[in-house]
Amino acid sequence: MRRLFVFILLASISTIRAQPPADLVITHGTVVTMNDKKDVIDDGVVVIRDAKLVAIGPAAIAANYAAKKTIDARGGIVMPGMINTHTHAAMTIFRSLGDDVADRLKRFMFPLEAKFVDREVVHWGTLHGMLEMVEGGVTTFVDMYYFEDEVARVAKQMGMRGVLGETVINQPAPDAKEPYGGFELAKKFIADFRGDPLITPAFAPHAPYSLDEAHLRAIAKESEALDAPVLMHVEEMPDEMATFRKDRNQTPIEFLDSIGLLNRHLVAAHCIFANDSDIALLKARDAGVAHNMVANIKSAKGVSPALKMFDQGVRVGLGTDGPMSGNTLDIIGQLGYVAKLHKLVNHDRTLAPSVKVVEMATIGGARAIHREADLGSLEAGKLADVIIFDVDATNLIPNYDVYATLVYGASGKDVRTTIINGRVIMEDRKLLTVDAADIKAHMRAMAKSIGERVGPVPK
Amino acid sequence: MRRLFVFILLASISTIRAQPPADLVITHGTVVTMNDKKDVIDDGVVVIRDAKLVAIGPAAIAANYAAKKTIDARGGIVMPGMINTHTHAAMTIFRSLGDDVADRLKRFMFPLEAKFVDREVVHWGTLHGMLEMVEGGVTTFVDMYYFEDEVARVAKQMGMRGVLGETVINQPAPDAKEPYGGFELAKKFIADFRGDPLITPAFAPHAPYSLDEAHLRAIAKESEALDAPVLMHVEEMPDEMATFRKDRNQTPIEFLDSIGLLNRHLVAAHCIFANDSDIALLKARDAGVAHNMVANIKSAKGVSPALKMFDQGVRVGLGTDGPMSGNTLDIIGQLGYVAKLHKLVNHDRTLAPSVKVVEMATIGGARAIHREADLGSLEAGKLADVIIFDVDATNLIPNYDVYATLVYGASGKDVRTTIINGRVIMEDRKLLTVDAADIKAHMRAMAKSIGERVGPVPK
Repeated sequence: MRRLFVFILLASISTIRAQPPADLVITHGTVVTMNDKKDVIDDGVVVIRDAKLVAIGPAAIAANYAAKKTIDARGGIVMPGMINTHTHAAMTIFRSLGDDVADRLKRFMFPLEAKFVDREVVHWGTLHGMLEMVEGGVTTFVDMYYFEDEVARVAKQMGMRGVLGETVINQPAPDAKEPYGGFELAKKFIADFRGDPLITPAFAPHAPYSLDEAHLRAIAKESEALDAPVLMHVEEMPDEMATFRKDRNQTPIEFLDSIGLLNRHLVAAHCIFANDSDIALLKARDAGVAHNMVANIKSAKGVSPALKMFDQGVRVGLGTDGPMSGNTLDIIGQLGYVAKLHKLVNHDRTLAPSVKVVEMATIGGARAIHREADLGSLEAGKLADVIIFDVDATNLIPNYDVYATLVYGASGKDVRTTIINGRVIMEDRKLLTVDAADIKAHMRAMAKSIGERVGPVPK
Repeated sequence: MRRLFVFILLASISTIRAQPPADLVITHGTVVTMNDKKDVIDDGVVVIRDAKLVAIGPAAIAANYAAKKTIDARGGIVMPGMINTHTHAAMTIFRSLGDDVADRLKRFMFPLEAKFVDREVVHWGTLHGMLEMVEGGVTTFVDMYYFEDEVARVAKQMGMRGVLGETVINQPAPDAKEPYGGFELAKKFIADFRGDPLITPAFAPHAPYSLDEAHLRAIAKESEALDAPVLMHVEEMPDEMATFRKDRNQTPIEFLDSIGLLNRHLVAAHCIFANDSDIALLKARDAGVAHNMVANIKSAKGVSPALKMFDQGVRVGLGTDGPMSGNTLDIIGQLGYVAKLHKLVNHDRTLAPSVKVVEMATIGGARAIHREADLGSLEAGKLADVIIFDVDATNLIPNYDVYATLVYGASGKDVRTTIINGRVIMEDRKLLTVDAADIKAHMRAMAKSIGERVGPVPK
């Protein structure tokens, strides 16, 4: 009888004190929330349940949850995963080929892709690219390429979040023998992957100059009907600007607006040559912009007025572009370039302060893909895309200002742990969902074969 | 009798087949020599004896030497150590303080140094900076700071090569209460360290605008008498250019030439505003130039015409500047910026090809400090400053072009092993001559104290 009483008493206490469960609690890090108030919590805690952030707060809140797993981030920075708003991940297979060659796209890259890109290249190239992104703290990537259904499959295998666009272009493509064959592929791809928790399938019309108006209008219509994003290179090329001025007396952005493509579905990559009127249109139509600083200056094209856009409320995120253009795929490698180039071209070292650049990389990227409601900052209710930085690296000591440390000192290799959709994808630099050594071995073997067959790089 | 015969026979064979000894043989790497012909040896060998390179060649030559130690660099890149031609290593202590502040030097940095820099700060700050440089593949650093004898002592403790200049300036300094007190300190420092195998002591007059003509002339005379280098900030500041134009109707470089300072002793840092006439003078007088791209654009000052200088035969190397200016201290972090910014400002993606940028970082740096006879390339007879790169990192795969891989893909963290003057300083990322954890612990403690006392960063 007494035993029964004690049992009931203990059971009652247990019920009263029951802690809500958590899948993962991250403790003791400096939590950089990137919320509206830019709260930074020393010795902070991040609580994850299922795919979502449940709570963010001071050390004491950890005791409120019964955690299945705890990660001690002591001495580290805990922050939202970074969003790579423009890339062609599979092009890792061509990295370090023809970097310093003039006028590459039509003379070198298109023929290279026609000769070598197939489903297997996309499979391994994308895995390799995602490996680099996850190792560098990218949790969402926006990809435009061919065989995009294969990209989606390997992204799900990796556990990585993607906005993935099947390319539509006015010439034969690696996955479509006929010009514009990608349009049908894109529609099927979007049908197949709609509603996936990790994948947002999209249309990727290559550029305003590489599709005819009828196809661009058709894509605008379909994207509206399907509520699907449209990923596109926009105002990247000097001859693109000249042609639209000559043929239509418009900027490409004005043209896109005139045919219904400049809207909340669009993620416009580059916008190097956007003028003030273009910027006002981008803002008015609520389009997103992917700012690819490293790739843009490597190609000697120019510095996009992306800081001005950002300051005027345009949805601006950061992108790496493909690894033949920008070579590396982690967003951290962009941060220093973004800060310094905007200072340089505006002759003012106070511009592009580090906090603003980190904003572009996180919540800015979420805005660019119209996902700021559930991505881009550490706030309860958002999806659990979180990274943990090591700050024991020599280059990150001292750390008087966490944003300056990230922008001016950090490398992608300082990321220790990457969590996507609540799942730990990399822990203490060990990949948990894929065999990194196997991916690298396949890439080396494929690159060896391509290297032997590629022929001379044009002068 | 038969035993004696056998013994003599074996001894003879042993004598005939005796291999010359080697302290260290590095095998199986891709050897990037940076010699005049830019030879790259697949599966190459580098042989080191005492402080020098004895032989560089194909795999077969390894068998010619009796090696005390062998490092298998299979799959890696073996190349000359990089030369950081301009820094203030001790300023690591202030890293991430006031990065985005306008007009910092006089408003913020000089007062900060006056308040906090002492021998202990220089001791630990320099150790920390060298730690980062060795981890990032820098084998020689050119330093201008205060308490430079302390810098020399810790460089010898680390085993790092340095061209070290004691600062002379027209105001009280952390190590000299009276203006120009550094001049006497510099002479004593040079006397104390002349002939050291690792340390080349030097004068470091701060800038043309921060010393009077009499002191600059005196330094010119002493540097000639002592055959000592002169390290100086030159044509870095817009108001420096304006003042010399107004007061003397000269550029600062013309002024230095007129007072005998523009010569083979000088390493001129920055030269952002050098005009064609300045470039011709730098070339004619055989002066060295330290090109600090990252720091120069972060401060929004401009892009030095260093590529033009390099192409015209001026002695141009790369530098990081101090870590309040450029934040990181490894030269690899400069390579991508150097390539891309020269492309950008010249509107030509074929400029600054990757091989040329690697040249600036190695043999170019050696030329800038007038040490190309014994540093900067892997050639028999030169000093053994060698680094080994890992190419298993995700960002370095594929590797179709080793120079492109280094310039556009690599990070300082991809260096595995650093050898200076024939001595292995870091092996497989473990520091062998200093206690890295102890250095970091001291830096954190000092930074914590400074952070509590520093007061507000100016707006």
